[in-house]
Amino acid sequence: MTKNNIQLYRNGHPIETGAVVELPKQVEKNGRSIEALSFFKQTITAETITLSYGFEKEDMVIGLGETVKGLNKRGSELVAFCADEPEHLPNKKSLYGAHNFFVVLGKVATGFFIDFPGTIHYDIGFTHKDVFDIKINGTDVAIYKFEAPTLKEVTHLFLSIIGQSYVPPKWGFGYQQCRWSYETADDIRRIGKDMREANIPCDTIYLDIDYMERFKDFTTCDDKFPDFENFVSEMKDQGFRLIPIIDAGVKIEEGYDVYEEGIRDNHFCVNDEGKPFVAAVWPGLVHFPDFFKEETRQWFGDKYKVLTDVGIEGFWNDMNEPAIFYTPKRLKAFYDHVEKSKEKPLDIYSFFDLKGEAESLSSSPEDYRSFYHEVGGELVRHDKVHNLYGYFMTQSAAQGLEAIDADKRFLLFSRASYVGMHRYGGIWMGDNDSWWEHIELSMKLLPAINMCGFMYTGPDTGGFQSDASGELLIRWMQFSIFAPLLRNHAALSSRDQEPFSFEEATTETLKNIIELRYSLIPYLYSSYMKAALERSVYAANLIMAYNDKRTREIEDQLLIGDSLMIAPIYKQNRTGRMVYLPEDMLLWNTKGTAVDSLEVMLAGDHFVPITLAEVPLFIRPDRGIILGSVAETVEQVDATQLTFLGYMKTGIEESYYDDDGLTKAYQQNQSQETTIRVLQSDEGPKASVDFDQESELMNVKIIIMDKTGQRYEGTLTREASSICLEKVSQYDN
Amino acid sequence: MTKNNIQLYRNGHPIETGAVVELPKQVEKNGRSIEALSFFKQTITAETITLSYGFEKEDMVIGLGETVKGLNKRGSELVAFCADEPEHLPNKKSLYGAHNFFVVLGKVATGFFIDFPGTIHYDIGFTHKDVFDIKINGTDVAIYKFEAPTLKEVTHLFLSIIGQSYVPPKWGFGYQQCRWSYETADDIRRIGKDMREANIPCDTIYLDIDYMERFKDFTTCDDKFPDFENFVSEMKDQGFRLIPIIDAGVKIEEGYDVYEEGIRDNHFCVNDEGKPFVAAVWPGLVHFPDFFKEETRQWFGDKYKVLTDVGIEGFWNDMNEPAIFYTPKRLKAFYDHVEKSKEKPLDIYSFFDLKGEAESLSSSPEDYRSFYHEVGGELVRHDKVHNLYGYFMTQSAAQGLEAIDADKRFLLFSRASYVGMHRYGGIWMGDNDSWWEHIELSMKLLPAINMCGFMYTGPDTGGFQSDASGELLIRWMQFSIFAPLLRNHAALSSRDQEPFSFEEATTETLKNIIELRYSLIPYLYSSYMKAALERSVYAANLIMAYNDKRTREIEDQLLIGDSLMIAPIYKQNRTGRMVYLPEDMLLWNTKGTAVDSLEVMLAGDHFVPITLAEVPLFIRPDRGIILGSVAETVEQVDATQLTFLGYMKTGIEESYYDDDGLTKAYQQNQSQETTIRVLQSDEGPKASVDFDQESELMNVKIIIMDKTGQRYEGTLTREASSICLEKVSQYDN
Repeated sequence: MTKNNIQLYRNGHPIETGAVVELPKQVEKNGRSIEALSFFKQTITAETITLSYGFEKEDMVIGLGETVKGLNKRGSELVAFCADEPEHLPNKKSLYGAHNFFVVLGKVATGFFIDFPGTIHYDIGFTHKDVFDIKINGTDVAIYKFEAPTLKEVTHLFLSIIGQSYVPPKWGFGYQQCRWSYETADDIRRIGKDMREANIPCDTIYLDIDYMERFKDFTTCDDKFPDFENFVSEMKDQGFRLIPIIDAGVKIEEGYDVYEEGIRDNHFCVNDEGKPFVAAVWPGLVHFPDFFKEETRQWFGDKYKVLTDVGIEGFWNDMNEPAIFYTPKRLKAFYDHVEKSKEKPLDIYSFFDLKGEAESLSSSPEDYRSFYHEVGGELVRHDKVHNLYGYFMTQSAAQGLEAIDADKRFLLFSRASYVGMHRYGGIWMGDNDSWWEHIELSMKLLPAINMCGFMYTGPDTGGFQSDASGELLIRWMQFSIFAPLLRNHAALSSRDQEPFSFEEATTETLKNIIELRYSLIPYLYSSYMKAALERSVYAANLIMAYNDKRTREIEDQLLIGDSLMIAPIYKQNRTGRMVYLPEDMLLWNTKGTAVDSLEVMLAGDHFVPITLAEVPLFIRPDRGIILGSVAETVEQVDATQLTFLGYMKTGIEESYYDDDGLTKAYQQNQSQETTIRVLQSDEGPKASVDFDQESELMNVKIIIMDKTGQRYEGTLTREASSICLEKVSQYDN
Repeated sequence: MTKNNIQLYRNGHPIETGAVVELPKQVEKNGRSIEALSFFKQTITAETITLSYGFEKEDMVIGLGETVKGLNKRGSELVAFCADEPEHLPNKKSLYGAHNFFVVLGKVATGFFIDFPGTIHYDIGFTHKDVFDIKINGTDVAIYKFEAPTLKEVTHLFLSIIGQSYVPPKWGFGYQQCRWSYETADDIRRIGKDMREANIPCDTIYLDIDYMERFKDFTTCDDKFPDFENFVSEMKDQGFRLIPIIDAGVKIEEGYDVYEEGIRDNHFCVNDEGKPFVAAVWPGLVHFPDFFKEETRQWFGDKYKVLTDVGIEGFWNDMNEPAIFYTPKRLKAFYDHVEKSKEKPLDIYSFFDLKGEAESLSSSPEDYRSFYHEVGGELVRHDKVHNLYGYFMTQSAAQGLEAIDADKRFLLFSRASYVGMHRYGGIWMGDNDSWWEHIELSMKLLPAINMCGFMYTGPDTGGFQSDASGELLIRWMQFSIFAPLLRNHAALSSRDQEPFSFEEATTETLKNIIELRYSLIPYLYSSYMKAALERSVYAANLIMAYNDKRTREIEDQLLIGDSLMIAPIYKQNRTGRMVYLPEDMLLWNTKGTAVDSLEVMLAGDHFVPITLAEVPLFIRPDRGIILGSVAETVEQVDATQLTFLGYMKTGIEESYYDDDGLTKAYQQNQSQETTIRVLQSDEGPKASVDFDQESELMNVKIIIMDKTGQRYEGTLTREASSICLEKVSQYDN
């Protein structure tokens, strides 16, 4: 596999999105004419480019990142247009991100990244079953083509040119508790206290919009959060980092410094008349910073210092599609419509018009055509570059934070995104619902989002809107503990869904699941860092590794890292599920962190009983996972001891990555590697550990099961780093 | 099993709903006091009754009819309140029907039917996982309790007291084509022509609201449908029966006879002031007939004669929750709200209030508290008896049609319903979407609705709202051909979804699937009639027959009649699925009507490859299905020949029911029975057929496969009604 398999095609004068930053030298920077892109038939008009491809029978289409669809997009219609879409329904064509990387997987894998910041329509064999039509709403475009034998390789080619994934602080792998809203400092204190009293590990608590003074960015409300700085430090002393939200819109209010500076220095997007564009979001009327301007990005990014100065170490950027609740112009049109309606009795069509008018006040296409950005000194209408807005806001934040402390990892993620933004932060999966169907959706989103470069992601576990039951939260948590971003979040009108807000038995089960997460962090973090460094993915559909007929259609089992397969339950009242094993695996069906209930399972289909308390982990042959200890927070975990759990058919060699978790030293290869080997010998399995000099690790307990179901154990130390393992019966422990 | 297992408990003075009509004599008509209902802890206040039950670990709750939930309702929250709910989302607590029959299935089965026409809240272990709370919004209630060892028996007890299911004409099992709207006679002609040219069997075409003159019930629009009577007969000559819609609201319009008679004879529901209540639905402002009055039911039911006189033989009653788009009173309040909003800049909460106000104009609880019915001479506020409205409208239609022709079966179904209405008509599953998830939902609804008495039901195949792909329609059709009501329906703004509206290959596949339906009608109709006559169900979850641990959690496979199991594909891009066989079965994975591709499958889990063209049918051991021929319409099918396909392990004896399909002679046991036996003998399997004297049937081709996979065939006639079957190799045919 060489990078020669990457080609660039261009038409017109594509806007520099910054998505591609590591194009290999052998690829001509200016690329070839789009007409040379023979994979697609092209129709180029003055306004649009349409690319058409005729499907072969077996072709799949995989990719496109954050969508409501499953693994194989064939038969679907999607639109790349960052949308504030709280209803994650099957017919929604857009969610928050615009991720124009996809792979046509037939006999070989052919990937494309369409680097274009406006709207793209994908009709993937929906209208005509064998026709894939891509309509690009513009003519200035760069298209990258990747060719390789497999999905895995072609994905690697794409990931290799867009730059390294954002890396969160290691505490960003801890359990995170959110709510719209914990309205006061005392609310937060109570949540922290309840978490600690329930002995549930937790690293962060979120500050949703109500922490601000009337929703003004970079303010805190003194009434609700008196002495904010001390409060931040009080919570940190208990192990909780507070993560405030930052919204895209800046409140129009005389005397508010951000507003006044923005006006003074022309930082805001302008309307037709060159005046700051006005829309309404949480704070009421706002202006939108023009993140397309370098100086605006720098100005806004610097503002995060207001909060880092008082001890804040992480942020989530929201409402940055940008979402618009209404504009004064559209509201006036609505009022006029109502006035006209009053004149005569409504017939039924005019009634639905009226209702529709109210519904379409928010994020209207007309509004997105009514403001402008300055791009390279010229004004560009927003809709033509819409998909970059959230990206550039998050870039602004990341660069601001870098200026504050160049070596520190901050937690940072966004709602809206575009490829390239993955270098600056993660994304969360947006405003889902407490629906069983949305557990399944988050299982589809995790690998799809990863494939487009965004490695740090996860759902609002338990569901944002609607009410969760304890069972739903448990089952969702059993999946989410495998996502890099593990956050429980609920909306204003939703029932409480903190782990301690249900019956005692539910709390106990959730505690065990979250503890399992903490003990898995050494493996999950190692897998994450390897994916970021090696330009591969953290979570993948089975087809990424197995590439056979059966795994093409399996989307409710995932690979996490190289060694682990998961098969969560995502339906109500289930006591088990069917699991397909592409090869023999070791099942650890665990109720917590104790390594018992191991079972070798043969390749094929199995009904696996899984009680509400159990999390099934499947370990691939000749591989293993590394487990740590549990503590209240990630940083408090004892790093001197680890447990290795492996499944041996012939022999195992696995290396685990670790680093300080807080700085960017990993960029200078300042990391530690622990290598574990288990080999067959005449005296039975023999294990050895290569301890890294820099690591705090003192001993590793090795547990393996061989293909006959015999369990072996042994503990290795720096002094005795190679030993023969001993047979143990399953229930000696 | 005796009817002694039925108990009646009463409190206050329950309104006579007519749901229960065959209470066995040994059950005291007045029942016992509700306090004697020891299954539940009771809390009775002045306004409500709450029943509470503490779950045992293994308890399931099955029933409640038309809901968005799956087989086991445990963990869910539902509300019995007939609702015009076009969004069939996981958090919706009510759909169109109020079906208060449910079974707590633990070690034994305990069923309850709460006969109460107002709102009932079911918190089935949602708020607290082991607490089942039922809150009845009233104190006048009758509760029937049924006890039996199994779900099947307890369901039979319930079905045995509520009267026999509605029986449609046999042509009601044909394929039915609908659309909102085929607007003109020429549109209908074109649809008919296209169906015939594509050689796709079809029995009916629907007239949605636009056939009426400005949506006035019992009118036809002369412009769009000139010479309606001749048109009806022209279409019938081509084999198409036209099925018009009838809405609940009567347009307020001087000179419109239905309106004027209604006013003159006080047929309309009244408001607080005793004046006819005004709401807006399709026709604009309307009054609602007070179907609670016997004379109003009779008056409205007689109106159907306007359409039967011109040859109409079937109807669908719609909007009869009743749906309310708005009332003048609520609209005024909305206008006032808007006026107030204008006075000052909206903050964000007042903006959402405003939007919410527009959204809540329709079917508002306040409106349902603003009108009255006359019940036994007294005025009763609508909300207290809301769930009976659609029921009584459909009873009115059925009784009107009976008065028109007492012996004729009309096609009749409704949107809203309550237990008891099942005697007068079917229900369809309402306004779903072209979503894969809604194929799955319709698979959940079919057995759940059947269990509550409504045997004639089916989904809008292909989905009502949103756009369907060809693949979605094919997969949905592959399920819907097993539903009694097989109708394709799409909404105003949806893409065309007639079987001929896609690519040629899609049309061809749909044709084969619909032909399979027609060939299955002898079996499906026999199963339907047996269920109606024997008070059992037509379609059932596996648990109804097998009652074991695995089948408790299987809801994507169904039993249709006694001999057939189905396992449809309901996910995009699938080429197969997992199927659980509770016992050995014979798989007929068919591309149409030819009986090939037979395979014996052993009990257990199987991955079954199923191409887009294939419909897998699983035949239970020592049972079989009876297949007829295919024709353009049900009535044109050749009734002289049938094919029997059976799977023999030890011996088969199956009887099939048939009748004239058009009259109510079945009520006098005027029906035919064909019995087929296959027994092992020394010379191999020996088959015999008992031909019914009255039947047109002349010969039956018998095809069986034995457990070794050996296929045998033979054709039996009235002359040679007992023969030895001959071995054939699978591919002789």
